[in-house]
Amino acid sequence: MGEYKLASKEKLNQNTIIKIKDTLIGEGYCTIIAGPCAIESRDNYLEIAQILKEIGVDMLRGGAFKPRTSPYSFQGMGKEGLQIIYEAKMLTNLPAVTEVLDVRDIDYVYKYCDIIQIGSRNMQNFSLLKEVGKIDKPVIVKRGLSATIDEWLLAAEYVLNMGNEQVILCERGIRTFETLTRNTVDIGAVSLIKELSHLPILVDPSHATGKRSIIKPVAKAALAAGADGIMVEVHQKPEDALSDGSQSLTPKEYKSLYLELTKFSHLENKQIN
Amino acid sequence: MGEYKLASKEKLNQNTIIKIKDTLIGEGYCTIIAGPCAIESRDNYLEIAQILKEIGVDMLRGGAFKPRTSPYSFQGMGKEGLQIIYEAKMLTNLPAVTEVLDVRDIDYVYKYCDIIQIGSRNMQNFSLLKEVGKIDKPVIVKRGLSATIDEWLLAAEYVLNMGNEQVILCERGIRTFETLTRNTVDIGAVSLIKELSHLPILVDPSHATGKRSIIKPVAKAALAAGADGIMVEVHQKPEDALSDGSQSLTPKEYKSLYLELTKFSHLENKQIN
Amino acid sequence: MGEYKLASKEKLNQNTIIKIKDTLIGEGYCTIIAGPCAIESRDNYLEIAQILKEIGVDMLRGGAFKPRTSPYSFQGMGKEGLQIIYEAKMLTNLPAVTEVLDVRDIDYVYKYCDIIQIGSRNMQNFSLLKEVGKIDKPVIVKRGLSATIDEWLLAAEYVLNMGNEQVILCERGIRTFETLTRNTVDIGAVSLIKELSHLPILVDPSHATGKRSIIKPVAKAALAAGADGIMVEVHQKPEDALSDGSQSLTPKEYKSLYLELTKFSHLENKQIN
Amino acid sequence: MGEYKLASKEKLNQNTIIKIKDTLIGEGYCTIIAGPCAIESRDNYLEIAQILKEIGVDMLRGGAFKPRTSPYSFQGMGKEGLQIIYEAKMLTNLPAVTEVLDVRDIDYVYKYCDIIQIGSRNMQNFSLLKEVGKIDKPVIVKRGLSATIDEWLLAAEYVLNMGNEQVILCERGIRTFETLTRNTVDIGAVSLIKELSHLPILVDPSHATGKRSIIKPVAKAALAAGADGIMVEVHQKPEDALSDGSQSLTPKEYKSLYLELTKFSHLENKQIN
Repeated sequence: MGEYKLASKEKLNQNTIIKIKDTLIGEGYCTIIAGPCAIESRDNYLEIAQILKEIGVDMLRGGAFKPRTSPYSFQGMGKEGLQIIYEAKMLTNLPAVTEVLDVRDIDYVYKYCDIIQIGSRNMQNFSLLKEVGKIDKPVIVKRGLSATIDEWLLAAEYVLNMGNEQVILCERGIRTFETLTRNTVDIGAVSLIKELSHLPILVDPSHATGKRSIIKPVAKAALAAGADGIMVEVHQKPEDALSDGSQSLTPKEYKSLYLELTKFSHLENKQIN
Repeated sequence: MGEYKLASKEKLNQNTIIKIKDTLIGEGYCTIIAGPCAIESRDNYLEIAQILKEIGVDMLRGGAFKPRTSPYSFQGMGKEGLQIIYEAKMLTNLPAVTEVLDVRDIDYVYKYCDIIQIGSRNMQNFSLLKEVGKIDKPVIVKRGLSATIDEWLLAAEYVLNMGNEQVILCERGIRTFETLTRNTVDIGAVSLIKELSHLPILVDPSHATGKRSIIKPVAKAALAAGADGIMVEVHQKPEDALSDGSQSLTPKEYKSLYLELTKFSHLENKQIN
Repeated sequence: MGEYKLASKEKLNQNTIIKIKDTLIGEGYCTIIAGPCAIESRDNYLEIAQILKEIGVDMLRGGAFKPRTSPYSFQGMGKEGLQIIYEAKMLTNLPAVTEVLDVRDIDYVYKYCDIIQIGSRNMQNFSLLKEVGKIDKPVIVKRGLSATIDEWLLAAEYVLNMGNEQVILCERGIRTFETLTRNTVDIGAVSLIKELSHLPILVDPSHATGKRSIIKPVAKAALAAGADGIMVEVHQKPEDALSDGSQSLTPKEYKSLYLELTKFSHLENKQIN
Repeated sequence: MGEYKLASKEKLNQNTIIKIKDTLIGEGYCTIIAGPCAIESRDNYLEIAQILKEIGVDMLRGGAFKPRTSPYSFQGMGKEGLQIIYEAKMLTNLPAVTEVLDVRDIDYVYKYCDIIQIGSRNMQNFSLLKEVGKIDKPVIVKRGLSATIDEWLLAAEYVLNMGNEQVILCERGIRTFETLTRNTVDIGAVSLIKELSHLPILVDPSHATGKRSIIKPVAKAALAAGADGIMVEVHQKPEDALSDGSQSLTPKEYKSLYLELTKFSHLENKQIN
């Protein structure tokens, strides 16, 4: 196995801080990204975007292209969804992140969003990694379901190696034998990544746990372990969500989480954007 | 989660048998696919192809596009490699299988090979699965490193659902805590797939073990568990291989494996092609 | 970590063959051990023992002390169960194996049985391992649910190191993320153990799969991979079993398995006792 | 599988708080237990005990009976070690916890220590669980290396069911494919246990990570996730430790951790004893 170089702490004499409009992501900041798992309709998405804006949020999330285990599940609104995200960005003046699944969609996603996400299932889709390495917008590389820390940093290295220095890592839980939670958050990996790499790292407690009731303590634990922010799912009516309802917060729960993380970041000397 | 329908045993009242030239893959047959992990040069590949032809083999394998953990590892010969495979096919009159990593390469791979392989890391690259679902050549879907049996069958379902009925599964080991072997062959999954699905299933003992010395017993175990064939790595000089040398057989070791599997298939009433 | 010495292939210039009455366990033989998971009543156990004797079996199994996940599950018949096993031994003239959970029960188990089993959950109960290392009857050391091969051989080393040279290993499946099978049989570990150690190794396809329908192919795969025998659960009425019913064979299914394994052992040049 | 009842949140209308001298363990408190992995000599242990007392600590830890993977590794000082712990307790007026491996040692351990620990490898040593269920001192039940949350709570249930209501859980990392850390801390399990059970739960970041450098952030994450305290390894000279040196803190590092956790507990409204 080769080794990561560009992703390594030794490479840079300072941590990478990524700037998107007024939002900073990286060491010393606490960035909160929120939104529904998937964009389900224009009205719903614009509404939740405004709700989040009012409560407080740094960036919107929302899936237009959804990687679903089954071909019979809702596959996302596609390009129409991207236009809705764009509209929400304009409305709220917030940046937005969305996932890309196919090299042929990169141009389109690039046009409508501020950060491009490489999902867990595509962490070793090397064609995709190389292509997003050619653009000049930040890329979130989520950890694969059973990827080691080394493999994850090497996936980031694929992007860095093509010239794109704006890479953000995101721990979203790994697959273990435990079945009460959807995945197992590898909190030690978060602390270790802060030691090994200069790249910002977020944690997604929604996918990592699959359980609404424990998202708040796990999000706090993520920050305590060194994470530079949180990426969380929020839905007006989780019980009606087309995907991941059981792990989505209601706006009220999100508000409670946001306040808690704000207080918490203060203690940790992390700035809320 | 949705459920597989087209991949299910109930769907067809007979097992799927796939025919490529004179080679049959499926229940009642034992298909042996062999070749180096990667095509490293024209001379080497044509030589090993002829060696395998002489010993006995049903189909050639060889990677032109290599999914490597590190961007600094040998990435394969690309399109030039495909032309070499094609030449080897002409020379030996054997069909060949190679992996595709990028939707934009499908047309090219289609032209030069007989079976297209979706590798472990792309088992949930749904864009790629949908695209190979549109072609009229067989597709091997390897199990993801930490994919459940259900997820694997649903990946096959993505291909079937687009109209391509020629899907072959391949178990190549899953990731566990054990470190003495590269992966853990899930032999029970092979037996269970034969019960759940009508699709042919192969086992790749090279990736599944990562250890040359145990490939033969594991290959036999695969057939005993119900596998319809074996996909194995062979290299003239494993110690010089650009990838996966420690798990590649020498031609002599391959010959011993081939004879053993032939004898074994006979007992199991499986026809060697 | 220390390393195993006495369990290592290099230690002995021949494989260990263990003799119990007329039954031989080790390289070149195929030993079949069968019986219910737990002894549930005198009548039931004596009946199944005779049924197995008639069909063909090398040794009886049956749990008197049951390690159950819940304190509210049936905990076994205890010493009364041991007396029933003893009676079954007398009746059938077959040797018997049973599990011991507590150092204080070793003397008693020693008196009534021919082989003492250390179960999966006690593979690293080092007090127990040391105590059974002091007796002069064979000990089966089952692999722990998430034990590495090295740890397993070191558990055997604890017994060997106390002077008891009659150690038999038993692979019974490891814990992974897969949920369709109870555990994942690590067939590569069986092949590797045959390379690393002189000790006999059995496979328990009942616990390893948890599914009656795939016990036969998995048992065959175990022998093909190099296992020296099989340890399998059989119950007159699996649906009424107090434990592990879903993985127990009926006598009729056992007969089919026995005939298949006999035929199979012949091909593999293994003697059926 | 049976289900836990006595360990369930529904069983009690308040969280269990365990009192040992002046130390309280449970909801609303942050208990810090520290000491070397193993007691290596009288002088060393009495010295580290006094150092910890001066820095600040709630309880001493130290292994007299060590469960070691290899029979050739240091097995602990045994009963002599227990006497040293007792002396340290007298000297510092601090309570102490130590592990018991064998039912025959319980009386002795009971006499010299305040809390009895059931280690990871014995989490399903049901004989041992039943026996410590008969005593009137608190018992720490560490999670097994690959135990599910349900199995862990059922192990606690074995102790509770025998009449001992003073059970403390301890998450110490589970086994996964990741090799850069010794184990993977399951932080989501900590949050979930607080929801499911009334029992106090500690986290052992030393075993959970195996890496000195990330113990502090992981310990903080544990408290943030809801843990009621921390159990950590400290050694005067970690590089000379007979076991687990790489994961032991120096006294200076411990002091830094202690101050951080004190500050942190304050924010979380947890009382430091």
